[in-house]
Amino acid sequence: MEATASPKTANPKTPRGEATRRAILKAAETVIGTQGFNDASIIDITREAGVAQGTFYIYFKSKDEVFSELVREMGRLLRQALNAATAGARDRLTAEKEGLRGFLSFVSAHPNLYRIIQEALFVDPGAYRAYFQTFADGYRQALAEAQDAGEIRPGDPDVRAWALMGIAKTLGERAVVWGDETPIDAVVEAAHDMIVNGLRR
Amino acid sequence: MEATASPKTANPKTPRGEATRRAILKAAETVIGTQGFNDASIIDITREAGVAQGTFYIYFKSKDEVFSELVREMGRLLRQALNAATAGARDRLTAEKEGLRGFLSFVSAHPNLYRIIQEALFVDPGAYRAYFQTFADGYRQALAEAQDAGEIRPGDPDVRAWALMGIAKTLGERAVVWGDETPIDAVVEAAHDMIVNGLRR
Repeated sequence: MEATASPKTANPKTPRGEATRRAILKAAETVIGTQGFNDASIIDITREAGVAQGTFYIYFKSKDEVFSELVREMGRLLRQALNAATAGARDRLTAEKEGLRGFLSFVSAHPNLYRIIQEALFVDPGAYRAYFQTFADGYRQALAEAQDAGEIRPGDPDVRAWALMGIAKTLGERAVVWGDETPIDAVVEAAHDMIVNGLRR
Repeated sequence: MEATASPKTANPKTPRGEATRRAILKAAETVIGTQGFNDASIIDITREAGVAQGTFYIYFKSKDEVFSELVREMGRLLRQALNAATAGARDRLTAEKEGLRGFLSFVSAHPNLYRIIQEALFVDPGAYRAYFQTFADGYRQALAEAQDAGEIRPGDPDVRAWALMGIAKTLGERAVVWGDETPIDAVVEAAHDMIVNGLRR
């Protein structure tokens, strides 16, 4: 399903082409995120993006393909945001805190992320799997390195990676799907205290 | 959408009726969980349950109604399982451990739980919301009481409830959606160590 593997569609080589491709993906994020995959149409997406319908087919073969690429694009954007948020962190515990803040900020800027990723389990299970596996692999490696460097308490880095992803994911969903209005910084402080110190008195 | 509110369908009053209703829900769990809501048909469900198609309509008006009732039923069964798992726990930290073990055991016995609940966000958002809100409310209250009793480190019980739900949910998904084969007890030990002691060395 990679666009680059298709003879008809290709990753655009020019800045203008790249801007159009991103505008279509951004429109797909809004349209599919609010209407759901089944109800969203390519016409809705091109209208939202402000491009002609024929332009869509320069970049994507089908609604299925733009959806799969949207899931990958959101994964890439989220990884960029997390890398930026944690770049200055002096150790793993600080990186956990700034990563959680960066994640919740990203989610509040992309409120449709949850519906899109959740719908991917049904529309494109492979993209769904790759989205989470990529995060889990990177997270596990970072935790294993921090453990080797003596920055955190020893423990299974794989279980911890999934557990910490689960904390971030659920707190993000609480905000954008459930409408909880606790400020991000307060959520980060409370969750980080538990992540660092645990529940033991 | 409550079955009891309908003049045509009703909660069965006899043990035999209740057994048939549960057989239909169990079949719906299998059929909708493997095929997805759109592709699953009432004929598939009655065939799986071993009942006549007309029998279905004694208990449920439509595929939508059996789906909504299935989400509620899975919430009830999960709460029963968690209550049973934590009934003998002497304090909150023990209840966290046995609750996580009970949750992961329930999930492994109901591998279609994730697809069904996740699909509820699209098929019946109200049932999806009620499913999580009911767990979050009970969890928050238990954490607040444990904090008042001095059993755990003080902290925001609402953020913690969602964070702990996120850990359990993601570790369950890792097993049944991702096929991770780490034994439940090993997952529980690793996750519980982080929940109790945190990541700090």
